[in-house]
Parts: sequence; C-alpha cells; structure tokens
Amino acid sequence: MTPVSARSGKTLPELFLKAAIEAIEDAGVDRIDSIYVGNMMSGFLQHQEHLGALMSTALGKEGVPAYKVEGACASGGVAANAGVKAVLSGLEDVVLVGGVEKMSGYTTPEVTAGLMMAEDRERVGSTGITFVGLNALIARQYMHKYGVPHEAIAQLPVLLHQNALENPNAEFHKQVSVEDVMKSPLVADPLRLFDCSGIGDGAAAFVLAPLDQARKFTDSPVKVAASAVATDVLSLYQRPDITVFEASRKASAQAYMMAGVHPDDIDLLEVHDAFSVLGIMALEDLGFARKGAGADLVNNGVCAKNGRLPTNTFGGLKARGHPVGATGVYQIAELAMQLSNKAGKCQVDHPSVGLSQSVGGIGSTVAVHILKRTG
Amino acid sequence: MTPVSARSGKTLPELFLKAAIEAIEDAGVDRIDSIYVGNMMSGFLQHQEHLGALMSTALGKEGVPAYKVEGACASGGVAANAGVKAVLSGLEDVVLVGGVEKMSGYTTPEVTAGLMMAEDRERVGSTGITFVGLNALIARQYMHKYGVPHEAIAQLPVLLHQNALENPNAEFHKQVSVEDVMKSPLVADPLRLFDCSGIGDGAAAFVLAPLDQARKFTDSPVKVAASAVATDVLSLYQRPDITVFEASRKASAQAYMMAGVHPDDIDLLEVHDAFSVLGIMALEDLGFARKGAGADLVNNGVCAKNGRLPTNTFGGLKARGHPVGATGVYQIAELAMQLSNKAGKCQVDHPSVGLSQSVGGIGSTVAVHILKRTG
Repeated sequence: MTPVSARSGKTLPELFLKAAIEAIEDAGVDRIDSIYVGNMMSGFLQHQEHLGALMSTALGKEGVPAYKVEGACASGGVAANAGVKAVLSGLEDVVLVGGVEKMSGYTTPEVTAGLMMAEDRERVGSTGITFVGLNALIARQYMHKYGVPHEAIAQLPVLLHQNALENPNAEFHKQVSVEDVMKSPLVADPLRLFDCSGIGDGAAAFVLAPLDQARKFTDSPVKVAASAVATDVLSLYQRPDITVFEASRKASAQAYMMAGVHPDDIDLLEVHDAFSVLGIMALEDLGFARKGAGADLVNNGVCAKNGRLPTNTFGGLKARGHPVGATGVYQIAELAMQLSNKAGKCQVDHPSVGLSQSVGGIGSTVAVHILKRTG
Repeated sequence: MTPVSARSGKTLPELFLKAAIEAIEDAGVDRIDSIYVGNMMSGFLQHQEHLGALMSTALGKEGVPAYKVEGACASGGVAANAGVKAVLSGLEDVVLVGGVEKMSGYTTPEVTAGLMMAEDRERVGSTGITFVGLNALIARQYMHKYGVPHEAIAQLPVLLHQNALENPNAEFHKQVSVEDVMKSPLVADPLRLFDCSGIGDGAAAFVLAPLDQARKFTDSPVKVAASAVATDVLSLYQRPDITVFEASRKASAQAYMMAGVHPDDIDLLEVHDAFSVLGIMALEDLGFARKGAGADLVNNGVCAKNGRLPTNTFGGLKARGHPVGATGVYQIAELAMQLSNKAGKCQVDHPSVGLSQSVGGIGSTVAVHILKRTG
C-alpha cells in the first residue's frame, strides 16, 4: 500500500503501481492472471476511465483480463469480491486486486460533489445536502435514539489516531483527545472535524490464489474464508431506521455462515469509520454489541490493540486515511498483514480470524470479508 | 433492451429498469441473486456512481449484491464476464447482467471528452486528439497497408443500416448506399459520418443461471459456452501495428478453446463496429479472414443475414446504436434472441453458435462471448 496523503503529487497509475508491485513482490508469485481495480471517482475527478487496461499496461501485464469495479466508497470491497469470484470460477488463478483513488488537487466543492455520486443524484443530490450532511443526520438520530453522548462516540477517533501513530502509511500521525474532538470545527452538526475521515490519495493491493497454489509461494497464506456483498435501498430517506445498516447485517450474516464462524470467533476487525458514528454502528451491525452499546466496546478497551477485538489497528479510515475506492483494499491488506505477522509496529498478538467491513454510500453497499490465519 | 435514442428523455434508472424488467420477464425467473451493471460514463456525464445500489433499489431488489463494472466501451462485455464468473463461482445462481449509458443531453465537446476517458488522459488526451481522431489514424493506416479502398469498407455500414430497418430498437432506420457514406460529412479524415456510430441512450439486460437451473425456466436456454476478456497496451502509440487488435485475437483464441469450437463453427456474429474499419478488422482478428480481406466477407455477402456468417443482424453499433457501456450487453442479448428464435423480423435461419466481440478503448480491452443454441 502507499502512504495515504493529501499531497501525494502522484497520478492514478503511479499510486496503483507502487501498491501492486509491493503486493506482487510480497506474494512472491511468478504471474498475474487478471486484475480487478476498485475505484470510485476517476471519471468525475480525473476524467479517466478504463482503469483496467490503464493499470495492466502500467504494470507491464498488458494482455490479462482487467477491469474496474465500482461500488462507491465500497469499491475496494466489491473489487475484492470480484477477485474472489474470479478465483472461485476456475477461470483465473493468480488474481491481483487493487484499489486506487486520487482525491487531492481538487477544490472542496469538487470533492464534495464527487462524494455525492454515492447517493441518488436526482432525488437527493439535487436538494443540496452533502454526503457529510447525510451522515450528520445519522449521528444526530443515533445519539438521540440510544442516548449516547457525543463524547462516547468520540473515543473511536481518539483510539484510531493512537493506532495510526505506529503506521508509516497513515495519513495522520497526531494524537488527539476526546476534548480535541469535541472542540474541533463543526463540519456538519453534530459531526466535527475529528469525527470525519479526511481527503487523501492512496492505493492498496493484494494477490489472491487458490489455497493449494498459494502454498507454493508461501508457507503461511492467509485464507479468504468469506466474501459477501449486500445492498440496501440507496437513499437514507427510504429507510425505516437510519441508525441501522441492514446491508451490514446481511453481508456479515452471510459471511459468518460462509466462513463457519460466529462473531465471538473474530479477533481482529476493520470497520468503515468514515465518520465516527459509522464505526460505532458497525460494531453493532456486525454483531459485536447490541444497538446503542457499540461505543462501550471502545470505551472498555475491547477494541484496543491489546483488547479482545483489536479494531482498525492501522488507524482506520479516520487516521490511516480514506482514499475512497482504495479503502476496502487497504482493510483487507491490513488484515492479511496482521494474520501473517507482517504488521510491523501495528502488529497485535497472534490474531486468528479477521473481518473487514467496507461501506459504500450511506450503508447502501456493504462488502464483508473474513480472513483466517493458516500458518 | 430499450430502443437506442439520442432523444430518450430518460434517466439512467429509467433506462435500466425497462431492460431489466423485460429480461427478467422473458427469462421467467422467480428471483435475482445479484446484479452487475456495465456503464462507462455516468460519473463524468451524470455525476452519478454507485449504479449497483441505484439499480437494485430501482428494481425493488435491494439487498442483493450489486455493483458496476467498467471497461470503457467494453463495459457491457466485461460486466457479462463478471456475471459469468459469479455463476461459475457458485456464490450466486440467478444473475442479472445489465448495461446502461446515457449520452444525450450533453454538448459534443462534453461527450467527446467523455469518450477520451477510454484512452490515457495524461499522455494522449492532453494532446487534444479525439477518440474519433485516433480511430481515423487506424482507418488511414489500414487502407494504406492493405490497399483496401474506403468504398470497400463502406459496405459494412450499408449492410448494417439495412439490417437495422427490421429492428424496432435501432437508433437509425435509414437505408444508405456506399455513395451516401462516401459523400457524408468528414468527421476525422478519412472517417465520414456514416463510418461512425452515433450518440445514444440505451440499456440492455439478460439473466444468467447454471444450465440445469435455467432448464427449470425454459426448454431452450442459450448456453454461454465461453466468456473471455483480454487487454492490450492502453494507447495506440504503444502498438507495433495499429491495424491489428491483439486483444481481439487473444480473447477470441481463449474463447474458441473454452467453447471447443473453431471460427468455422460460428454462424452468427456481433462485432464492435464503432467505426466501420473496426468492424472489418474484427472479422480478421477473430479469425474469419486474413488481414486486409475482412471487407471481402461483407462484399461477397458472407456477412448478410442470409449469408454464411450473419453479422450484426440488429444493425450493429452503426445503426442499432452504441450507448457505450450498454453495447456489449445489447450484443449478447441479440445473440440470445437469435439463438432462441426470438429475434422477430431480424431472425436469421436457425443459427447454432454465436460470437460477440465488445471492444473498449482503441482495442485495449476486448470481451468475447460464445453462445450456443440448446433447444
């Protein structure tokens, strides 16, 4: 993966190449059969599509099947799902999944408009509400419905900024306190600056292969035990309860069944904390806490690196950064690094089963992956 | 499929819905497990992404896995490939593949810039050359290298306009002569107006399922015998010979092997004639004629509806229309209609094996599908 940066100065292929080459070298594979590229905004911001052929060419792998997969901010997660299906199909064995996004170098209105492409442009975008504004509605309703104070939710960004201190690829290396969060500028009431992930460029990648083939390249491949995608009605106004992401519940239920595990078996977590409240809701919707009690897991130390369920150990969207179409791939790559003891200073003690949750739009697309240690 | 129109007045979901509902009703399936949406330009033109959840919501199928697949003008072809892999993966059975594009309602410079997203924006787009201009370079070189006169190539649009007369969904219902083509306005020398596909809105869809399950819904399912995607270096300037699309050769070679057939076995063809010369080159690169001899097949009647190799029987990109991200799906849907005797006035006499070729960019991504009659 590349460092996430709002000043990368790099083009889409430059970002992708760095991550792809690192992934291929780390995997030790001698060939790539196909490439799946997760990306959300290249058409709108860079006026560039056709990222499949663009990236296969940049990588010197012209010839192989390659295309872009898009599911808003879950583009990386759904690209991973496409890669898993490609391997399961038997048509391709050694598959490169990459996610890339370039968000810097544009004005705030441009990026804000780009993010609203995740919602219904016609019916919701036309009202003028922003993507942060929609998430602020969720935060307000969540706090009200469950009586959870903002300060409790604010513990999540505090933890994630702490985790990111050890991650050389993190966008932010800055410790913050609950007080810092609560005093940071309002972005969309009640969300404050430190409740929100930032704008950043980045790319991440990993290599998939059938397990028997993967064993030729490494003694301890990480097993993809589940890959599940679910959707929900696209827009917030269509939901009976905006404090629950049904697509998270559905995708995780399928993933648990596919992997033959229970939430209690998960000992490493990557959740989509684009906004602090989303990270808290994820803990609930994925089955780790009842509704309204997600923040307790953070505040009781369960989600800490030395807790029972280390969460976003590289800093999460909040502090590692959120280059939208790449984020789902960062999450899976980070799980894989942890599960193969390659997480460096971010390493937690011998995790066995990790789960990643990648969210597109306002919970409208959710991709869940479960990875297991084999070594 | 919807009629292709430059005055549809319809939104992306409206276009998609019509095709999707028609496909589901025709297939007679009682459920949809997942949705793959081929589209190229929605981010750039409509400022709308997240077409997976947008379309699953519009269709009342919220919940199912759904995402967008993009490979420039081959987006429909690669979406079909993603759908085939999903079925082969065993994770999903009844899969809806749709393609949708809305290109009308924008200025020519806007659509022209949108099409250049298929090429390398940084290195090629920045020179100011247009997508038609790049194809004009190919046409010029092709005519020069093989000594093929423009008039010979112009027979293809004449045939396709003829074929489209019987297709109610065709964008153009207008008979043209070689003289009409040669006298039509220059777009990019030597390409003239009737060498070029037009701008249009449209959507197409079909339903995939494992063959044994498909037999529950119909006595004569069409078998997908092959689905292959290949890429080439993205840009024209990187190619040793711009009169050959290596990705066409590679994808078709793989597809023939997968289907266990030879070009001689193909008796129905859909080629990507975005520009007349590309249709002629396709006949060669897919193995039906030696280089320079493609136009002979058209001029000798081989490609006619009553010939040995009926080609683009619904009018092709030239006359049925080319809503870019949808076109690859139109092609496969048209093959399926022919192979199940549902092609109406476009029907040819009992074809058995059909091949579709969908091209993205300047031959940089090619998806080939081979379909077989089963009934």
